[in-house]
Amino acid sequence: MSASRPAARRELHLNAFLKPPGEFLAAWRHPDSVADAGVNIRHVVELARTAERARFDAIFFADLVGVPFADQEVLRRVSVVNDSFEPTTLLAALATATSHIGLIATASTTYTEPYHLARTFASLDHLSGGRIGWNLVTSLNDAEARNFGLDRHVDHEVRYERAAEFFDVVTGLWDSFDDDAFLHDQHGGLYFDETKLHWLDHQGRHFRVRGPLNIARPPQGRPVIVQAGSSDTGVSLAASVADVVFTHHPDLAGAQAFYADLKARAAAAGRDPDQVIVLPGLSVLVGATKAEAEDRLDRLSALLDPRVALADLAYWLGGVDLASHPLDGPLPELPLSNQSQSAQAHLLHRARDEGLTIRQLAAQLARDTRTITGTAQSIADHIEEWFTGRAADGFNVIFPYLPDPLDDFATQVIPELRRRGLFRTDYPGRTLRDTLGLPRPPSRWSSPHPATEGTSR
Amino acid sequence: MSASRPAARRELHLNAFLKPPGEFLAAWRHPDSVADAGVNIRHVVELARTAERARFDAIFFADLVGVPFADQEVLRRVSVVNDSFEPTTLLAALATATSHIGLIATASTTYTEPYHLARTFASLDHLSGGRIGWNLVTSLNDAEARNFGLDRHVDHEVRYERAAEFFDVVTGLWDSFDDDAFLHDQHGGLYFDETKLHWLDHQGRHFRVRGPLNIARPPQGRPVIVQAGSSDTGVSLAASVADVVFTHHPDLAGAQAFYADLKARAAAAGRDPDQVIVLPGLSVLVGATKAEAEDRLDRLSALLDPRVALADLAYWLGGVDLASHPLDGPLPELPLSNQSQSAQAHLLHRARDEGLTIRQLAAQLARDTRTITGTAQSIADHIEEWFTGRAADGFNVIFPYLPDPLDDFATQVIPELRRRGLFRTDYPGRTLRDTLGLPRPPSRWSSPHPATEGTSR
Repeated sequence: MSASRPAARRELHLNAFLKPPGEFLAAWRHPDSVADAGVNIRHVVELARTAERARFDAIFFADLVGVPFADQEVLRRVSVVNDSFEPTTLLAALATATSHIGLIATASTTYTEPYHLARTFASLDHLSGGRIGWNLVTSLNDAEARNFGLDRHVDHEVRYERAAEFFDVVTGLWDSFDDDAFLHDQHGGLYFDETKLHWLDHQGRHFRVRGPLNIARPPQGRPVIVQAGSSDTGVSLAASVADVVFTHHPDLAGAQAFYADLKARAAAAGRDPDQVIVLPGLSVLVGATKAEAEDRLDRLSALLDPRVALADLAYWLGGVDLASHPLDGPLPELPLSNQSQSAQAHLLHRARDEGLTIRQLAAQLARDTRTITGTAQSIADHIEEWFTGRAADGFNVIFPYLPDPLDDFATQVIPELRRRGLFRTDYPGRTLRDTLGLPRPPSRWSSPHPATEGTSR
Repeated sequence: MSASRPAARRELHLNAFLKPPGEFLAAWRHPDSVADAGVNIRHVVELARTAERARFDAIFFADLVGVPFADQEVLRRVSVVNDSFEPTTLLAALATATSHIGLIATASTTYTEPYHLARTFASLDHLSGGRIGWNLVTSLNDAEARNFGLDRHVDHEVRYERAAEFFDVVTGLWDSFDDDAFLHDQHGGLYFDETKLHWLDHQGRHFRVRGPLNIARPPQGRPVIVQAGSSDTGVSLAASVADVVFTHHPDLAGAQAFYADLKARAAAAGRDPDQVIVLPGLSVLVGATKAEAEDRLDRLSALLDPRVALADLAYWLGGVDLASHPLDGPLPELPLSNQSQSAQAHLLHRARDEGLTIRQLAAQLARDTRTITGTAQSIADHIEEWFTGRAADGFNVIFPYLPDPLDDFATQVIPELRRRGLFRTDYPGRTLRDTLGLPRPPSRWSSPHPATEGTSR
């Protein structure tokens, strides 16, 4: 199942970050969006099929196990955090509604059991014929913790320690049966070869798990591992275990530095750096002209209530109470965030570098300054520059609202990328690993020296 | 969405218990079965579509969160416990591959978190347009416990105490948003009416869960609740919370007694007994003649290795070591099972009543004496007798192997039931509650006196 290609040929990879009805917090208010998109399966199937027709590598769904905003004035003005399909059940539904596109879901290592997660993703990989990816997260906020018997979110360092052990358990469980363990020998009466069954017997600091998993090894060996952590701990985890890394960088130089650093860290961890695919986020709005795309962004941005923008800022700063500080003053000194440290650091740097007040920073978020506007030509230029400049192996393409910006990207930007010889016209195989050009990892039991292949974690 | 019918009209309900490649432990060895059926989605979709064409109320998948047999001589000779889709992901995949049939999965209250389970089943209900049922179990064996940090299975009484609290939390989370909470007011910018959001704030002996669930109330209000516990504690739980009860009775009188007792208990719990649907298991093999059906059963039974039969007996007796007892002697005195107390009691009674040795009892299991053989006519007679005699509201139809016995039931027995005016020719609505003739439960917040409607648990 693994693809073999000349080492020199780099492939551009595009993941569609689908957050129906769109990434922007006020996306659901857009007159062209489907307001109940989070629980409208016909709509989500259509999005998935659009992405598949365009030959995106995969589609991706983020997740939280709770609602992040305690302030009801804010909460009642947002959509997706209140009302969305649970991602693993959604992937399964999409598995029978699509045939080739990769399907990636977020799942947390902090508030789940590794046996359940290993089983769910193995089952999904079988259901989809090997098209599944797992975005490993450690969860973000206190609101999630309170749904699982805790008062506060587990500390950052403990979360990542637990995540590393969790990953060991999950990958161990996926290797419960060797690939050729199942004989299905109806005549002889042997369902499997018992010498090819491995009991995990894991006993660690956070988990005791006997195994085996009650399902065959996933078609991909292991589902594609996605990681988006950007703290130092998060990047270390990504370098050692991730097949695909989601990241965010506002400028080319920063992205190039991250790209070089991550590939070097992967090499230092004994891995082939070409097998760690770096996908920066790329939020895009296409227009016939730059001005038209800008106008679309303006109309979208105007839909965000300033209270929601401020609450979103407070959330990403680590759950601080900004209401007790003058909005026209600078950001106060803040304790280190226990949710996303990299998001907090990014906002603090931006406020300091640009001398922004709280209100100005919130307004920047509200204006959705991350989104790139332009023609198909100029957006393809951007993609080509970052790809050839080794700032990216492709992009995690983000749509401020849906479905139009996805349709536009599929029908305008992707054909332009193809004209430049940058993007595929068809899927090279059946599994997501085939599409990503990643080898199928051997079982930890199948190789005498698995550590040298970087797949033994 | 609720159906209203004259009270006098009883409807026959048929659930297809699908355990690909069949219920019998050696089913996978049958030459007409699909040996890898547990992880073959095309095959399972075909089974689901066959059941839907026949207008079964629902299909059902059992579950364990581990492999039950420690003895590899046994383990390697069985299929489904080693190698099956995880049921909730399977239901989601089937939701987009079917349109009307109900979809029921087992999920344990012992080794999961109520927030995850509530969310998964709410998501499934939305994905399927209201066709989901949850078979609430408390798990069975030590092998499952050892995948979740424990050495032994949680005690029977503690499991059921936890299950009752778990159920309260799950149903409370499903009611997080009132049915009309979501405004989707794009112009005004209000996604929902915050007065219609309810924070659960559950603090109990086993769980602390703040809520709310991050998804709208399920289309059915709550997914259909299925219970199969047959211990006294289990039956009490079923009488108080179950919409559908799976049960097993070898004879009409026993089934009638159980039926009357359960309906009385439901009435005593303040519920309408007609809204608790009792479905005994009915394992069937149809033939053109009784002799042909018997012959099919003989050929199937011959496929079971005696060691597997003995291990299966030991398992259902509570995990005892039968090897240390003379196989031609009587069953030894046994401690009360901590897995299925009712299964243990049933086997002990059978051995005592019929004076069976260990070997004879295992042989009876191996011969699959539960399966009823006959023509479509005689099987319809049996169904009619039990249904009109108030031993059953319908059946949980079990197929010793698949797919042929399901096809035969669908094309021979169901038409015969229709000729007798006993079974529907089409689905009456869109949801599983519609099909079962069950009202849509109001939210615990919507009624001034929810307790009198029996839906407040």
